[in-house]
Amino acid sequence: MTKEQALSVIAQKLEAIQSLITAITLMGWDAQTLGVPEKSLAARGAAEGWLAGEAFSRFIAEDTLEAIETLESFDSELTERERAMVREMGREYRKNKAVPPEEMQAYHALTAQAQQIWEKAREASDFAMIQPYYEKIFDFQRRLCDWYGYEKHPYDALLDDYEKGATVEALDVFFALMREKITPLVKKIVQGGKQPREIKGTFPVTKQRELTPWLCAFAGYDMSRGKIGEVEHPFCNTVNRNDVRITTKYHEDNPLSSIFSVIHEAGHAIYEQNMDEELRKYDLDNEASMAVHESQSRMLENMIGRSRAFTGILLPKLNELFGGFEDWSGEDLFRAINIARPSLIRIEADELTYCLHIIVRYELEKALIAGEIKVCDLPGLWADKYEELLGIRPPNDAKGVLQDVHWSDGLVGYFPTYAVGTAYGAQFMHAMRKTVDVDAATAKGDLSPVTEWLKQNIHCHGAMYTPGELLRRATGEPFNPAYYVEYLSKKHTELYQL
Amino acid sequence: MTKEQALSVIAQKLEAIQSLITAITLMGWDAQTLGVPEKSLAARGAAEGWLAGEAFSRFIAEDTLEAIETLESFDSELTERERAMVREMGREYRKNKAVPPEEMQAYHALTAQAQQIWEKAREASDFAMIQPYYEKIFDFQRRLCDWYGYEKHPYDALLDDYEKGATVEALDVFFALMREKITPLVKKIVQGGKQPREIKGTFPVTKQRELTPWLCAFAGYDMSRGKIGEVEHPFCNTVNRNDVRITTKYHEDNPLSSIFSVIHEAGHAIYEQNMDEELRKYDLDNEASMAVHESQSRMLENMIGRSRAFTGILLPKLNELFGGFEDWSGEDLFRAINIARPSLIRIEADELTYCLHIIVRYELEKALIAGEIKVCDLPGLWADKYEELLGIRPPNDAKGVLQDVHWSDGLVGYFPTYAVGTAYGAQFMHAMRKTVDVDAATAKGDLSPVTEWLKQNIHCHGAMYTPGELLRRATGEPFNPAYYVEYLSKKHTELYQL
Repeated sequence: MTKEQALSVIAQKLEAIQSLITAITLMGWDAQTLGVPEKSLAARGAAEGWLAGEAFSRFIAEDTLEAIETLESFDSELTERERAMVREMGREYRKNKAVPPEEMQAYHALTAQAQQIWEKAREASDFAMIQPYYEKIFDFQRRLCDWYGYEKHPYDALLDDYEKGATVEALDVFFALMREKITPLVKKIVQGGKQPREIKGTFPVTKQRELTPWLCAFAGYDMSRGKIGEVEHPFCNTVNRNDVRITTKYHEDNPLSSIFSVIHEAGHAIYEQNMDEELRKYDLDNEASMAVHESQSRMLENMIGRSRAFTGILLPKLNELFGGFEDWSGEDLFRAINIARPSLIRIEADELTYCLHIIVRYELEKALIAGEIKVCDLPGLWADKYEELLGIRPPNDAKGVLQDVHWSDGLVGYFPTYAVGTAYGAQFMHAMRKTVDVDAATAKGDLSPVTEWLKQNIHCHGAMYTPGELLRRATGEPFNPAYYVEYLSKKHTELYQL
Repeated sequence: MTKEQALSVIAQKLEAIQSLITAITLMGWDAQTLGVPEKSLAARGAAEGWLAGEAFSRFIAEDTLEAIETLESFDSELTERERAMVREMGREYRKNKAVPPEEMQAYHALTAQAQQIWEKAREASDFAMIQPYYEKIFDFQRRLCDWYGYEKHPYDALLDDYEKGATVEALDVFFALMREKITPLVKKIVQGGKQPREIKGTFPVTKQRELTPWLCAFAGYDMSRGKIGEVEHPFCNTVNRNDVRITTKYHEDNPLSSIFSVIHEAGHAIYEQNMDEELRKYDLDNEASMAVHESQSRMLENMIGRSRAFTGILLPKLNELFGGFEDWSGEDLFRAINIARPSLIRIEADELTYCLHIIVRYELEKALIAGEIKVCDLPGLWADKYEELLGIRPPNDAKGVLQDVHWSDGLVGYFPTYAVGTAYGAQFMHAMRKTVDVDAATAKGDLSPVTEWLKQNIHCHGAMYTPGELLRRATGEPFNPAYYVEYLSKKHTELYQL
């Protein structure tokens, strides 16, 4: 195979795979925004399964490897983009090839079943129902570590799968720092922090809907290249960089939920919308990593959305739309949207305590993969860790170990990306502040200096660089969780006047 | 190839093709209900093009023909459904194979361009702009007749493509009858018919939306296996028989438009929803023909929806929702929804004059294909025929020969299905009335005896039978346009007290 033949093989595959993925993405959007009729589920699932299988078998075919190996042998003749494409494809190909197909198929069948059982187990708050499934899932994941390979800790293989380059060694340092600095801070807030005023009342959904375009424009989300849907659990959905859709959910008793979910999803959306158009040819129109994606949404939601500068422009908007905020100061609102309070449910956690929820999961996954604990130990250990880290103990497993869908979905090693992403965000923000007056831009309601920095330093590159390389290029240093700890400590010490 | 091997080849193809078509259908729904961002059109089009091309090349591959021929040789051993599958597939395969691929490709490129030019030509009311495209399109269509083959008239080849078994011979008789009976009736109405009262006012869209589920339930459309969307030009969209979606458009100044569009699309939808579940395996979960599909929508919309029995239950609903109908009688409403009036635009035509619009197109297409007239003659002949048949002459080509997208879309031989479908509807209705009290069911607001008859005699069969065979089975006789002429004459003579 010549270099040109190899590039042509890959271009043909990409055309097919991207077309199939476009279809699957739009079918997913349809299902999530409109729902699938009960009786259509089987036919619909069969079609989606066929499309996904077709994309996979085109990717995993022998000639893909031949093309990758050919291009690897021409490394010095490749453009920077071609080289990045070969790097990403080679990695993906070899990971997929490492797992025996019949094992993977059995695992898909197992997790499909486990998801249904998990829903019932959570409803009944009965861990025993899901336990045998978790045992098989973690057993598979331990074997997956061997198939993928690792240098030091087997869990590294799984961490790296979701966050290229992540290791137990690095995350242990990160989470130890969080534990050391954040746990005492949370305790102090519980014991003696000045409690903020809370927003109460009825906030008509039709009025909340009027706020959404303003929030999107503020966040730099280009609605002419997207759409806004309403769903139960908000998400961002990318058909291609020129059709990036977000969703939200309006709660009549709480306008904050939709406001911050819109800013969060818009943070994901601008990442996708700002990728360089040419990257698609190289299959590099993807995020550098899941944590980098999460860094963009959380930075926008928390570090900008939950800032004093933003409450300054949000308060008059709330008053104008809903009334009832006449006696509120900007400071009152700033404090109300930053309430920190230990809670049991991760997805409802505030900015400060969120990371502690992740530590629980990280430590349990690591110990399970190392064989230091057993699946049957999970409920007890989960409760102990919540007590230790957050000072509260779940009254039952539904509010404890059964709350997340991830394990029954077959995802192990995924949770840490949420926390790592936020830490990346703090590091990016620290670097950005050297040249951009973020607070002034926020206060003016014109984030363009911020989004321009993000576009140039992060967004436009797509998957060109590994997360480590991207961090170094954008911030001048490797991953450094100190910025995150510093940001959280400073903000909350001041907020709660500790 | 054994019979079993042939069946297995076809089953595998169907799995792939049906999956691809499911995706294309849902992408179409998304585009039509939500729109595609301008900048995403190219990537989106490329993906859809790839999916459609993949479906086509899987169908047109050599082994499909081998499987078809194998099964044809085992004809006597096939089940009735297998035989119908082989009949439909063989027909489709041979038609597609008859056209040289490079000619078909060039034609697709031509019509893609022609559609864009047509929009501009209609806007500018300038036939000269589209004329060279129409010349090439009709030239291709004349060659298509030779590729497809025909016995008597070349136009037969095109008619048969959209309506299996349709011929110039049969349609000449049909349209001559319409011309003879309907044209004088329209003249009489214009000259001396008692003019009905018209609905005027403002009808809030939110209230019109409340009426839609009632109309759907009335028509037997199962909303748990479908959805309702809002679009510019209403249509029905089938993902599979358990996910059949309809759309409507609400006009604030006119509640009738949405009411009858909902009933019309629901007529299409129940056909799809009522097909036998097992037919999908044989790719027979399709309409018997386009005209049969149209018969179902028009029968429901016009013969039931625009009946005296229906106005009896519609009037109280209108009063309840909008008010202002207190001094209307059921008879007033019956006359108001059946206004017959010669007009220039086909898609806005009423039940009586609709067929005359089709005759214009049928006669012009037939003469063009026979080489008796030229494309450059179209504007003048079009205007002459409108004057002759409807007594009005288009003031310009935008309101005349340029009004329809079909020719620029490359569709020749398609128009007659609209009229033939309505005539089928009248024939089905005549047969149904022998055992079903249609008016009593309508007046009770419970159409189940009607929809059950339709399900048993038409819907459940999908594409098992050719339209001619289906007509014979359901009505006991071949196509007989007399029922349609009789129905229209009786209804309108009485309505206008002629």
